[in-house]
Amino acid sequence: MEVKERCKGFLQEVQNHLSKELIPFWLSHGVDKEYGGFLTYFDKDGNPTGETLKTLVCQARMVFTAASAHRANLGDGAFLEFARQGVDFLLNHFWDTQYEGWFWTCQQDGTPDNMSKLTYGHSFGVYSFSEYAMASGDPRGLEWALRSYEVLQTKVADNCYGGYYEFLERDWSKKRPGVYGGDRKSFDIHMHLMEAFTNLYEATGERLYKDRACETIELIFKRILHPDFGTGIAQFALDWTPLRAILFKDVWGSDRDVEEEARPLDNTSFGHNVEFCWLLNHSINILGLDLEPYKGPMRKIYDHCLEYGIDWDRGGVYCEGPHDGPARERNKEFWQQAECLVGMLDAFLLFGDEKYIDAYEKVHRFVMDHVINHKVGEWYPLFDENNNRLWDYMGHAWKINYHTVRSMIQSEARLSRILA
Amino acid sequence: MEVKERCKGFLQEVQNHLSKELIPFWLSHGVDKEYGGFLTYFDKDGNPTGETLKTLVCQARMVFTAASAHRANLGDGAFLEFARQGVDFLLNHFWDTQYEGWFWTCQQDGTPDNMSKLTYGHSFGVYSFSEYAMASGDPRGLEWALRSYEVLQTKVADNCYGGYYEFLERDWSKKRPGVYGGDRKSFDIHMHLMEAFTNLYEATGERLYKDRACETIELIFKRILHPDFGTGIAQFALDWTPLRAILFKDVWGSDRDVEEEARPLDNTSFGHNVEFCWLLNHSINILGLDLEPYKGPMRKIYDHCLEYGIDWDRGGVYCEGPHDGPARERNKEFWQQAECLVGMLDAFLLFGDEKYIDAYEKVHRFVMDHVINHKVGEWYPLFDENNNRLWDYMGHAWKINYHTVRSMIQSEARLSRILA
Repeated sequence: MEVKERCKGFLQEVQNHLSKELIPFWLSHGVDKEYGGFLTYFDKDGNPTGETLKTLVCQARMVFTAASAHRANLGDGAFLEFARQGVDFLLNHFWDTQYEGWFWTCQQDGTPDNMSKLTYGHSFGVYSFSEYAMASGDPRGLEWALRSYEVLQTKVADNCYGGYYEFLERDWSKKRPGVYGGDRKSFDIHMHLMEAFTNLYEATGERLYKDRACETIELIFKRILHPDFGTGIAQFALDWTPLRAILFKDVWGSDRDVEEEARPLDNTSFGHNVEFCWLLNHSINILGLDLEPYKGPMRKIYDHCLEYGIDWDRGGVYCEGPHDGPARERNKEFWQQAECLVGMLDAFLLFGDEKYIDAYEKVHRFVMDHVINHKVGEWYPLFDENNNRLWDYMGHAWKINYHTVRSMIQSEARLSRILA
Repeated sequence: MEVKERCKGFLQEVQNHLSKELIPFWLSHGVDKEYGGFLTYFDKDGNPTGETLKTLVCQARMVFTAASAHRANLGDGAFLEFARQGVDFLLNHFWDTQYEGWFWTCQQDGTPDNMSKLTYGHSFGVYSFSEYAMASGDPRGLEWALRSYEVLQTKVADNCYGGYYEFLERDWSKKRPGVYGGDRKSFDIHMHLMEAFTNLYEATGERLYKDRACETIELIFKRILHPDFGTGIAQFALDWTPLRAILFKDVWGSDRDVEEEARPLDNTSFGHNVEFCWLLNHSINILGLDLEPYKGPMRKIYDHCLEYGIDWDRGGVYCEGPHDGPARERNKEFWQQAECLVGMLDAFLLFGDEKYIDAYEKVHRFVMDHVINHKVGEWYPLFDENNNRLWDYMGHAWKINYHTVRSMIQSEARLSRILA
């Protein structure tokens, strides 16, 4: 079958899932009608689990998702109000008026719970509020995107080694080392900062934020991508010495059922690599950079994923593996699928090689046939390599609609471009 | 003669010069009674030269000098008002309300002239306003020290390679490369940032600024001091690749009558090296750091100056030379003398070796017998290696009382400690 033919089918499924399943689920389930902000804990049937802790990452990401959906002409305007009340909740409860910055978690009613300051959450402060600004024109959008930028620069930038500290206490002192993260830097956070600064530039048109985005891109190429293989190294000491990756306490991933031990030093994440590539391409577009010098490095990352990450037999993409060999952590996480969908379409658009459509299809079919809970409208979070479902919740402290909706919106746009 | 005997004589001369010459000169000549702010251009007789351009560096440094003199119980309170009216002028005219930050120069009446943003000047924003805060308790002191800190962090920090960009346009875009400085970093600026962040920590007690000072110290040791010789490298590319130092346009030094060509790559400045050492020791004290690991590196720098920088025959200290051989640029600048006085006393207090008092004496005598214009009360700026006076003005666009008064105040304190 011709590429266009194939993509026509994919597009239909994507549009159908987005408009008939994902969006209705979140518009009907997402808002906390009692206290404002968002509900994020749902069991396999889409019913609230009774857990109510509000995490900065999810509250901010819900704002991003809603704003980006509105910008993509979805939801008939309903997402604006959806986002606005989320912004209200964040501003009323998550902002630390004493030390500045965003608290890490609040109780359902907004009482601060974990008052730590995490750079990850602040990158989503920048990302989400600037997206909200572009969607709504509400001046609070830019105001608080800029406040988030300012605390990143004045409180957590590492002015010796470059990049940003990641795990801080409420008063911006670094957390303890090791699993508390005070002595580490990561690919994950710096990739999201690239995305955040790019969005801030898009929303403001101010060169200053373009400079920050460009610095972050240069930092990633200089310090984070493996000098020989070009794939991402997950964790580092503050001076950018690569370290074996560990799971941090109290954050996304800490509930993953994996070994206690640190990952091997040569470990790389297929999902982060590919997510980085398409976000980089997006940044290149928004920032007006020359694509050429980046094409080789991006292709290297995509091909690494094709060779070692994609499960060509059973579909989907594995979690992690070495920079130059078959995947070792072969479970399949929902978010890595979501990012690979966008990435593989981006790769096809960049390089025109049908093998990326083949890879897309392997992930697309796995997502459509196994990952999505079509009855409810959201994605199951985790599978083993044989596609057995390991976890079945629809929403959780760190899982909401950010990866899923963004993936469908971005995939739809790319599929449409291929068909155009 | 015993060290204490010798120091008693030095102290008398220092106190005499400070209280009978320097302070009266500046209290009577420094204030611009017409427009506010400070007058800085004086000929060899101490008369105004007719030049009136106000430079950020001099206006801010005059505030620093006055505030520090008041903290040292000099001037019978007169320096408070002296500083306060300088603060008024800076706030009324030098702050860019559109793009934030401090203009580089203004005309005498405060009309902005060169609206560029230089990191050097902003480091003195932090340094001077925090000193003024400690001297006066005026809340504007801390407020504007913090605003200066914030623009440094949000506009000029290099989040890829660490450190700070140095030469920027009014809108904070980098200046052109080469003599415009947009593609360079330097020892000079980063040393002054260490000093500035230390002062801000002293004024606020907030750990955040201690962190910035510690980062800057680490940066200097990691990137700026020569890995083998331990002496400072003057200039770098943005990624900290050492470069042959050049003279920049429109800043201090650009009026120096030296060759157009870049300096040799192995060049180091005796004055900056020694100034860095005593400022570092001050930072260690204020920040509460462990002195031990820094003693070896400081001793290396002092001994390099003793071996190659001091003119043991004719007195004084030369400008520059290689990291490991005799001085090449053998003129004697006033500010290098000023910094070496403080540094050599600091070295004696640290290491107890009388050779540092010998070096101090060589500079002290040169200063007292040749550099100071005792009739007027200030220092001549420049001599050749045979102690012939090359320039004779008392004040200029980049020369006022910062080095001279600070040197005398700091020398007095150290001499008193030796005598105690």
